[in-house]
Amino acid sequence: MSTSSTTRLEHDCIGELEVPADVYWGIHTQRAIGNFTVSGVKDSSHPQLMQAYATVKRACAEANDELGLIDHGKARLIVAACREIEAGKLADQFPVDVLQGGAGTSTNMNMNEVIANRALELGGHDKGDYRYIHPNDDVNHSQSTNDTYPAACKLALIDAIGPLAEETKKLARTFHDLADRHINDVTIGRTQLQDAVPMTYGQEFHAFASFLKADTAALERVVPQLMSLNLGATAIGTGICADRRFRNTATEHLARITGLPITAASDPIAAMTDMSAYIAVSQTTKNLAIHLKKAADDLRLLNSGPHDGFNDLNVPARQAGSSIMPGKVNPVIPECVNQVCFRVFGMDTTVTWAASEGQLQLNAFDPVIIHELLRGIDLLTRAMVMFRERCVEGITINAAVGRRYAEYSPSIAAALNGSIGYEHAADIAEEASSTNRTVREVAGERTDLPADQLDELLDPITLSRRLGQTCREHHE
Amino acid sequence: MSTSSTTRLEHDCIGELEVPADVYWGIHTQRAIGNFTVSGVKDSSHPQLMQAYATVKRACAEANDELGLIDHGKARLIVAACREIEAGKLADQFPVDVLQGGAGTSTNMNMNEVIANRALELGGHDKGDYRYIHPNDDVNHSQSTNDTYPAACKLALIDAIGPLAEETKKLARTFHDLADRHINDVTIGRTQLQDAVPMTYGQEFHAFASFLKADTAALERVVPQLMSLNLGATAIGTGICADRRFRNTATEHLARITGLPITAASDPIAAMTDMSAYIAVSQTTKNLAIHLKKAADDLRLLNSGPHDGFNDLNVPARQAGSSIMPGKVNPVIPECVNQVCFRVFGMDTTVTWAASEGQLQLNAFDPVIIHELLRGIDLLTRAMVMFRERCVEGITINAAVGRRYAEYSPSIAAALNGSIGYEHAADIAEEASSTNRTVREVAGERTDLPADQLDELLDPITLSRRLGQTCREHHE
Amino acid sequence: MSTSSTTRLEHDCIGELEVPADVYWGIHTQRAIGNFTVSGVKDSSHPQLMQAYATVKRACAEANDELGLIDHGKARLIVAACREIEAGKLADQFPVDVLQGGAGTSTNMNMNEVIANRALELGGHDKGDYRYIHPNDDVNHSQSTNDTYPAACKLALIDAIGPLAEETKKLARTFHDLADRHINDVTIGRTQLQDAVPMTYGQEFHAFASFLKADTAALERVVPQLMSLNLGATAIGTGICADRRFRNTATEHLARITGLPITAASDPIAAMTDMSAYIAVSQTTKNLAIHLKKAADDLRLLNSGPHDGFNDLNVPARQAGSSIMPGKVNPVIPECVNQVCFRVFGMDTTVTWAASEGQLQLNAFDPVIIHELLRGIDLLTRAMVMFRERCVEGITINAAVGRRYAEYSPSIAAALNGSIGYEHAADIAEEASSTNRTVREVAGERTDLPADQLDELLDPITLSRRLGQTCREHHE
Amino acid sequence: MSTSSTTRLEHDCIGELEVPADVYWGIHTQRAIGNFTVSGVKDSSHPQLMQAYATVKRACAEANDELGLIDHGKARLIVAACREIEAGKLADQFPVDVLQGGAGTSTNMNMNEVIANRALELGGHDKGDYRYIHPNDDVNHSQSTNDTYPAACKLALIDAIGPLAEETKKLARTFHDLADRHINDVTIGRTQLQDAVPMTYGQEFHAFASFLKADTAALERVVPQLMSLNLGATAIGTGICADRRFRNTATEHLARITGLPITAASDPIAAMTDMSAYIAVSQTTKNLAIHLKKAADDLRLLNSGPHDGFNDLNVPARQAGSSIMPGKVNPVIPECVNQVCFRVFGMDTTVTWAASEGQLQLNAFDPVIIHELLRGIDLLTRAMVMFRERCVEGITINAAVGRRYAEYSPSIAAALNGSIGYEHAADIAEEASSTNRTVREVAGERTDLPADQLDELLDPITLSRRLGQTCREHHE
Repeated sequence: MSTSSTTRLEHDCIGELEVPADVYWGIHTQRAIGNFTVSGVKDSSHPQLMQAYATVKRACAEANDELGLIDHGKARLIVAACREIEAGKLADQFPVDVLQGGAGTSTNMNMNEVIANRALELGGHDKGDYRYIHPNDDVNHSQSTNDTYPAACKLALIDAIGPLAEETKKLARTFHDLADRHINDVTIGRTQLQDAVPMTYGQEFHAFASFLKADTAALERVVPQLMSLNLGATAIGTGICADRRFRNTATEHLARITGLPITAASDPIAAMTDMSAYIAVSQTTKNLAIHLKKAADDLRLLNSGPHDGFNDLNVPARQAGSSIMPGKVNPVIPECVNQVCFRVFGMDTTVTWAASEGQLQLNAFDPVIIHELLRGIDLLTRAMVMFRERCVEGITINAAVGRRYAEYSPSIAAALNGSIGYEHAADIAEEASSTNRTVREVAGERTDLPADQLDELLDPITLSRRLGQTCREHHE
Repeated sequence: MSTSSTTRLEHDCIGELEVPADVYWGIHTQRAIGNFTVSGVKDSSHPQLMQAYATVKRACAEANDELGLIDHGKARLIVAACREIEAGKLADQFPVDVLQGGAGTSTNMNMNEVIANRALELGGHDKGDYRYIHPNDDVNHSQSTNDTYPAACKLALIDAIGPLAEETKKLARTFHDLADRHINDVTIGRTQLQDAVPMTYGQEFHAFASFLKADTAALERVVPQLMSLNLGATAIGTGICADRRFRNTATEHLARITGLPITAASDPIAAMTDMSAYIAVSQTTKNLAIHLKKAADDLRLLNSGPHDGFNDLNVPARQAGSSIMPGKVNPVIPECVNQVCFRVFGMDTTVTWAASEGQLQLNAFDPVIIHELLRGIDLLTRAMVMFRERCVEGITINAAVGRRYAEYSPSIAAALNGSIGYEHAADIAEEASSTNRTVREVAGERTDLPADQLDELLDPITLSRRLGQTCREHHE
Repeated sequence: MSTSSTTRLEHDCIGELEVPADVYWGIHTQRAIGNFTVSGVKDSSHPQLMQAYATVKRACAEANDELGLIDHGKARLIVAACREIEAGKLADQFPVDVLQGGAGTSTNMNMNEVIANRALELGGHDKGDYRYIHPNDDVNHSQSTNDTYPAACKLALIDAIGPLAEETKKLARTFHDLADRHINDVTIGRTQLQDAVPMTYGQEFHAFASFLKADTAALERVVPQLMSLNLGATAIGTGICADRRFRNTATEHLARITGLPITAASDPIAAMTDMSAYIAVSQTTKNLAIHLKKAADDLRLLNSGPHDGFNDLNVPARQAGSSIMPGKVNPVIPECVNQVCFRVFGMDTTVTWAASEGQLQLNAFDPVIIHELLRGIDLLTRAMVMFRERCVEGITINAAVGRRYAEYSPSIAAALNGSIGYEHAADIAEEASSTNRTVREVAGERTDLPADQLDELLDPITLSRRLGQTCREHHE
Repeated sequence: MSTSSTTRLEHDCIGELEVPADVYWGIHTQRAIGNFTVSGVKDSSHPQLMQAYATVKRACAEANDELGLIDHGKARLIVAACREIEAGKLADQFPVDVLQGGAGTSTNMNMNEVIANRALELGGHDKGDYRYIHPNDDVNHSQSTNDTYPAACKLALIDAIGPLAEETKKLARTFHDLADRHINDVTIGRTQLQDAVPMTYGQEFHAFASFLKADTAALERVVPQLMSLNLGATAIGTGICADRRFRNTATEHLARITGLPITAASDPIAAMTDMSAYIAVSQTTKNLAIHLKKAADDLRLLNSGPHDGFNDLNVPARQAGSSIMPGKVNPVIPECVNQVCFRVFGMDTTVTWAASEGQLQLNAFDPVIIHELLRGIDLLTRAMVMFRERCVEGITINAAVGRRYAEYSPSIAAALNGSIGYEHAADIAEEASSTNRTVREVAGERTDLPADQLDELLDPITLSRRLGQTCREHHE
């Protein structure tokens, strides 16, 4: 290895290349920088992934150390370097494009080189002096990209799902609080956009909370799928180059370090190409997006107006809505949520493609999968913060509008089915609708039912709560 | 070849197999029946494709005849058999699953066998006596599945696009007529579901017509992409087994027979694997579906109510809408249209997958592509008939509702921007909205503008027609 | 109700209509037949769904009976009619298009009418004499489409998932058996389509079994999501028209009848519009399709040749592959599997769309969802039968080819990393590759390692089994 | 307006807000910064869009000036400010999130404010002193977001399509050159991954060129769809607030400035919500991605090996391929191309969603559409540069391998069909395959055809060129 003042010369199986003297990465990273020039987004934009990878490397180093596979002194230096990266240091040393080819090899090589060079430095050696600590022989000992990169990806997803679930829970709580404030405010339920039967605003908002509560549970259910890892499987799942004990030891170290119940996949060959965990994360995220889209869509509908629409409620005014129509205010926050959801639907497409195109003993398209998932999760997490703070918390209802809607819906005649039958009730509904009167009024004229019975039968709040007990329990 | 009373024995490179004595297909078809058992839908469910294939076979037979490549007598019999299939005969002789493997080979083999056996019969021979007319050596002479099957598929698509375009045009006409009936009926335009500025029902309906008019043009533009065919390219585009003159001669015969300006693809190797025409058909169909979805969605919104919704218009009542809510009527026809659109969006996904998975000199997934496209086009064609006859033709408007909406929209204050500025107009809009008065009323109090000028500035019909000239021209 | 000899006259809130005298359906069905004319596929094409719906109706009738909500005699007749439908009778009485608008109301109406008319008949009354048993007031008592239709859909999905899981299991078993037969046959593992390191055919096939085993477990995990139902929630989840006790009683009856641990959804309003269970089924099915695609893709690759490809193994010859290239045989069964997978990917798109377009208190697009899911599941189930019987069971390997591949892969030099380091090993790999010799040969010359150590280090079968213990355990 | 040293106070219909004193944007932008916090990607990341928007604003200002709608002095200042932005100045003044809600209103407001403040400055006024030049009344005069934002988006797409088409052309040229170098090098064509019949490497590479040539043409065809704009249509297409002459005048100015044959859409109401042009761009881009995917997939297959795969050719070695397998080199550049294609497929999904969710008189989801399209086009453009420079230009073939493949393919027996018939040829193919001899060898023994005729019939290069004339012409 020769060095100039500003570069050092490294070599690989392709030949030699100058690397800037002050960087911690080496020739493999340097080649990758030159090779992959598509997205302009660097690995360092996913600190979760970089830190998780350092954690994986640390677990492997400790396993190598424990099993006597590498020199104890080297192992200590490697571990120290990993800890620094885990703590957020050297964060600018991961410059490879996120859409890199090579199944993550460049990221692994980059990680090996940065760890090796930092370890060398900590040990008093020059960067690039790989005789002491070698990126492949030492840092990568007992490892392959194909077992460590997916491990890092899955840990990074677990890290990313944490805040996603947390924000899902908070948004659920906000909808729940909103529901509680309007538990007695009657409005109309609509099916197929047609007036149906009464419900309360509380019930309507509570449903959004229930969706999100279910999503939180779904996110929790998906995490265990991310904890079946494949350390020690090395290149194709057969464990070549790895001591037989390494698989368990490395897995145990990783479990200990992370505090997660990580296990080794039962079929290491299958695990090498099984993308099920990514598909599951994508689907769970997509389903959350479907729920958010529904909330955003419904709120935009219910907020329509102010005069010429539903006008059931008001989402908070956030900014002037039109450059030309003075005073117009639009539901811009839900609209932004919608767009994030469309982006997440696109993510699911990309992930499905990449997950379905593996060949033989490897799927080379992990990088686009992990990038899209981390990006999609981040978008959705931030969208929920925005949705909660700048929309849901400030929603107000138009209680008088809702009550009037409930009273005038012809479908409330359903409450008379039991007393006068579906067909007779239909006549009353029809007359109420065509004369723009309430069913209560028409029923008073057209049936023999006493007024107080009609009042009771057609009371909106009572009708909203036929299954009230269930709901109350649920509220607890 | 031995025969029993009920079967005849045929052979191929795999071995021997009994074929029912009375069918026109042979061993290749018989094996395919046994091999592909997934969809339960037979090739015969696409008569367009079967008839188009017979047309392709006829053109090839005539080219072979003209060039002296097969015996004239044989050619005449083959042509006669093709003509029968083109006329709809022998329609039950194509029993292979539409989702067959093999890139369409089974369909081609089936076609060759049926033609050969029918030709044999017409020539006074027994079915299966391939010494006289052989499915491969004679019927398939100068041909491969890989050049004739896509040709048939593309002709079938042209056939299918005809009625699709026709129904698109009819539906456009219906929306146009509806628009004409309401050219002077004012209503409110809404952006982002918020009250915006006045327009007429006529303009609103006319936009649907304009979409569909554009779709008709797009369908016309896509057809030429389907007329670049690859006859004579045979197995991989090199033309092996085909006389060099065959390509042009067969193409000319097919052009003559169909009356279409069919040409030979400029790069026969590329044409073998280029799925662009299918992608273009899928996209054009999808875009039409997007327009239909918009019409269905908007109509469902505008029809919302009867009391608690927009209630701008009424789609015709087609059936009772609820098993429990008496008298409730739902917009079931638009809802059905929506579902067809979702199915078409799925079609586009399937087609994109299949089109993207070709390998080397062939894409083996033509069968699912053509099946999905024909199915999707058929669904959309029928959906438009239904939409037109059972919904659009019967739409009525609620003119008083629309006019009131137009008058009460606070955004109509935009019409004052020129006179009093955006910021002052915003104050008036705000006051109108919060006091539930019209902008006209508030502006009468809060500006110095004379009453007649205000009346003129804020007249809904005038505001709807700032670009009226353009619209009228368009109407012609 | 008047009747002629061939029709009977029925009425609804729209007016009157003639219904054929001999059919069991009534006016609501008759209108729906006329309204929905898009797919040409009838509800009766999904017997699982019709039978499941009859089961739901029976459970409701028994609940109504137990709670005294309808007359005991009527209830008995309704139950008897339901039992007939559940047993497969009256299967041709469900003629409505599967892509119907109306959120399933037509199917529910159809079911109510058929049950009512059959019950009337069983009770000695004329069909159509609804004074005795009314489709809405009696059969549909305490019910709505919006609670019973999804219940039937989910039961039908459970029914459909049974055979899907069963066939998944069988196909896994077949791959497992194939793996067992080749547990000692060495071949090459390839990553990124480049020669990697040795493995056995057994390991390769076993991975397919592992995927499918995981899919079976995933299918089992999705079923409980289908058992949270919403009976008694009626129109919008508030339980209007239903006795408060009905929810639990009906749920209990349905659980008893089906033997499934069915429960009532905790938030009946949210459950009304939550499509999560459908999304979960779609995703689980899609992930199974991804695994099948991988198996089909890999087998097609490994079968490539016979001379100019990988030629690792042979899928059974099923039919002549080409109309022009004599003797060519193609992997038509895997190709068919691929196409089914593409169709399933399209299904997921359609389901995602339909699931994401609900509005307010209902998603009206259940019909296209259930149709697509049942269709996709059926396609995949049949595809696995075909794949197993006509491909996987007959796979043979080319053991000598595999062994030679393993020996000649330059990447086997990885086995020397521990002894001579990654960089020196790279030189040997490079030389082996460029001189077309084995790493063993070159290493014998270029390293000091003794021959027996090299033999041991580079033994393919040993290299394949570094993690062998794990694999063996897994095999048990 | 009050100002402090570091902020200035602005107001809108919501209230007042401090804006940093030194920025050119105003209150509407400031609110939007606070409102939309999802992607972290700013409008300024799309300089094409910002510059195009300034061009649109300039055209409108010149039209306003010409028609006397705004003061000439103001117009000159506005034009000057626009020119600066068009030249790339003030590029950091567009800080709003690209996934903003509001249908682009914030971007328009931002543009109006920056132009107004810069114009004020140029006119010697303070920023924020909107009495002289007002963002809405002056800069936005005769305009709405809903007509100008789509105009800017479409111009930006035209700008982005330029380099995309240019790179497509260059990559086509590179494939063409590669083809030219190998026009006489025989190899095997494979269909369904099975050995088929001979072709040349030149033909194989030329097909990739042909795909891309077609894509270039398709990109050119899509541009006119982007040149039908809707200036003067203002809020909903009716032209409210705009002088009737403005539509034509502004369109003419924009055509003059850009040099493009821009026209006004024929139905301004329909144009307001028609997303067809975006769908067309998305599809054209997707189809290009399908072609690139095919090239990448095929090259990865043909490069498989070095020993245990196809090994038809070599893509250039770009970096060490494995952290564990020494000397292994992978086709990382095509793998990167694949991933970009998957991302583009996701883009198409997102765009389809956003394009399909418009409601009534506006589709509010333009921002995510334009962001995704610009991003996808940029990714694909860069991917083609990378593909060309770091892969295609360096491809070398293994001519001896190809020739041997061609000679040993049993399917070459097709060349004997004409002489001995398909069935006899099948026997020869079968024997050649099972004995691992060439068809030529077996045919020499098993037919009566003279040796020289066999040599001629089976000559690979002749077989490759049956349609050679066509190809040569194409090459010219």
